[in-house]
Amino acid sequence: MSGEIPAGKLQGERVRFGPDALSELYEQGYFGRPRGKALDLSLVEAAYLLDRSRIKVSQQGKELDFRAFFQASSALEKGFEFRYVVYKDLRERGYYVQPGRPDFRVYPRGGHPGKTPAEFYVLVISERMPLPLQSLVEPVRMAGQMRKRLMLAIVDEESDITFYEARDKTLSGKMGQEPSGGLATLLEDRVVLWDPEASVRLHEHGFYGKAIGEQLQLSLVESAYLLEKGLIEMADRSGEALDLEGLKEKAREIESDFDLKYRIYRDLREKRLVVKTGFKFGTHFRVYKQVGGPDRVPHSEYLVHTVSSDYVFMPPVLSRAVRLAHSVRKEMVFAYPEDGVRYLEIKRLRP
Amino acid sequence: MSGEIPAGKLQGERVRFGPDALSELYEQGYFGRPRGKALDLSLVEAAYLLDRSRIKVSQQGKELDFRAFFQASSALEKGFEFRYVVYKDLRERGYYVQPGRPDFRVYPRGGHPGKTPAEFYVLVISERMPLPLQSLVEPVRMAGQMRKRLMLAIVDEESDITFYEARDKTLSGKMGQEPSGGLATLLEDRVVLWDPEASVRLHEHGFYGKAIGEQLQLSLVESAYLLEKGLIEMADRSGEALDLEGLKEKAREIESDFDLKYRIYRDLREKRLVVKTGFKFGTHFRVYKQVGGPDRVPHSEYLVHTVSSDYVFMPPVLSRAVRLAHSVRKEMVFAYPEDGVRYLEIKRLRP
Repeated sequence: MSGEIPAGKLQGERVRFGPDALSELYEQGYFGRPRGKALDLSLVEAAYLLDRSRIKVSQQGKELDFRAFFQASSALEKGFEFRYVVYKDLRERGYYVQPGRPDFRVYPRGGHPGKTPAEFYVLVISERMPLPLQSLVEPVRMAGQMRKRLMLAIVDEESDITFYEARDKTLSGKMGQEPSGGLATLLEDRVVLWDPEASVRLHEHGFYGKAIGEQLQLSLVESAYLLEKGLIEMADRSGEALDLEGLKEKAREIESDFDLKYRIYRDLREKRLVVKTGFKFGTHFRVYKQVGGPDRVPHSEYLVHTVSSDYVFMPPVLSRAVRLAHSVRKEMVFAYPEDGVRYLEIKRLRP
Repeated sequence: MSGEIPAGKLQGERVRFGPDALSELYEQGYFGRPRGKALDLSLVEAAYLLDRSRIKVSQQGKELDFRAFFQASSALEKGFEFRYVVYKDLRERGYYVQPGRPDFRVYPRGGHPGKTPAEFYVLVISERMPLPLQSLVEPVRMAGQMRKRLMLAIVDEESDITFYEARDKTLSGKMGQEPSGGLATLLEDRVVLWDPEASVRLHEHGFYGKAIGEQLQLSLVESAYLLEKGLIEMADRSGEALDLEGLKEKAREIESDFDLKYRIYRDLREKRLVVKTGFKFGTHFRVYKQVGGPDRVPHSEYLVHTVSSDYVFMPPVLSRAVRLAHSVRKEMVFAYPEDGVRYLEIKRLRP
């Protein structure tokens, strides 16, 4: 049925075709963008079709083979190689993919341009490139507004791709009011609540601290929160009273990112969640929707790591965090300050 | 059977007891260090025994209760609170524990001082304190020389303890000689080997690169190694020949730690191991002892992360790396340059 192989011309970062390409390429596979009766292919689309001998490409009258076109495209377009690998992978999985913002639009299975809206926006990321938080926040917002999902395609140095989805997350729990706890002392870098009965109360309602003998050891964020709520009183080792500002000052000496950590801790507790250290998982917090008591501790639902709003991820670190969270059946959530606190969930996607 | 509760005096960082303590404390539990007919307890030992009402402690004629003694000890000895938590935990698991270098010596189950040699040296680490690689390398060496195992006890902010073992690791594989591969081109940040047959050969014998269509994409470390071995030739996008130094120079612009990574990669390949990216696991490499071919890829045995010899771990990052490696049934190994390359394995321990 098919006629001549369409022949296009490499012009800038596009390959331009005549009207024949419209029926051969666009109508039979949604390749390229129609421009009137003509068709423009992006460089990745053209490389993909050239590799399959479905098009010919020339530049200044000279035909380019796959190798020549690939080398030329790699020089013309930054990130071409990554995008090519991702485009090829998604196409070979049977999805219709179109160039778009941030990198591609992907249609749902069974859908295609003109029939269905795109399901995903795709952001292509190189394993080696630092990834600022804001470069995720912005596409997440854009995708949310357009009612799309945001797919991250991270390409490693061997051209393997790992897919993730990033989205805004709303967290909330079911815990009740905390009981009061009496006097606590700040020691070298943690806090001891001395009263055995108050220790049991706070540990049972709210899962605060860790029982060491009859005393309760509280972490710095726990102590600050209970102190801010007026549920404990505090002193230092010499017996001098400590107010919230005094405690925060000492806490900053011990943990340089105390303020950020506390801001997130406080927000999560205010959302009626139970928040404990996530040290064993390499994150700041593990979070429970509800804990009935120390003998009825359920599986924690979330791992929450706090980052500043100008934080820059290294993709291998991101990859490790998400993989680890999944291996213990938790959701990986990054918390950052913005209009209060916002939460960004990142999870593996298997397209 | 027991007589009066032994009464000791807090002097400096020791609590000193008379001869009665020798039979009450040392002979019935190997607490403290005998000094002639007297006995010295360290502060953690004394706090542990005071909490159980097995001793009395006074300072300048005044008796100290547990809270007063604990606060005093915390002020006297840096890291007292961490060591106390770890000591108490190990004792309550039924081990005999003695103060020693770096922090404690632990005897094997059924063993005790005077009967058996200690099995472990214990290094107590706070989750919050930066942990220089060298502060592990030195105790690992010391433990190795004394034929002990090195236990790391990392205490998190809620006083939960995670135990690890650190040890020197020798790695070796079973791979044969590599075949040659022809001409490869360095594109934006990766390398393409164009010849289809050579691509298949190198992918099948040595599991180099990733097949993209009929071409093989090679990573920078793979390319440098094959180039150094004389198994490929290289050119840049303009067709200009690249020698090893030329490739390394470009590679350093793409990956600032290229030299270190390549040094470790080279060492592992020279040890006849198959080395691929560990991106999905958040490490530099995943390592196989042997790969029969792309259709017979076994489970990789090791995750290897390269660090410089002055690298400083943050314990949560260490914790995450080890936990992730275990969750995928691999061993976590840190590689660092020293007399060539050395390998440090860190694994969870469940005492």
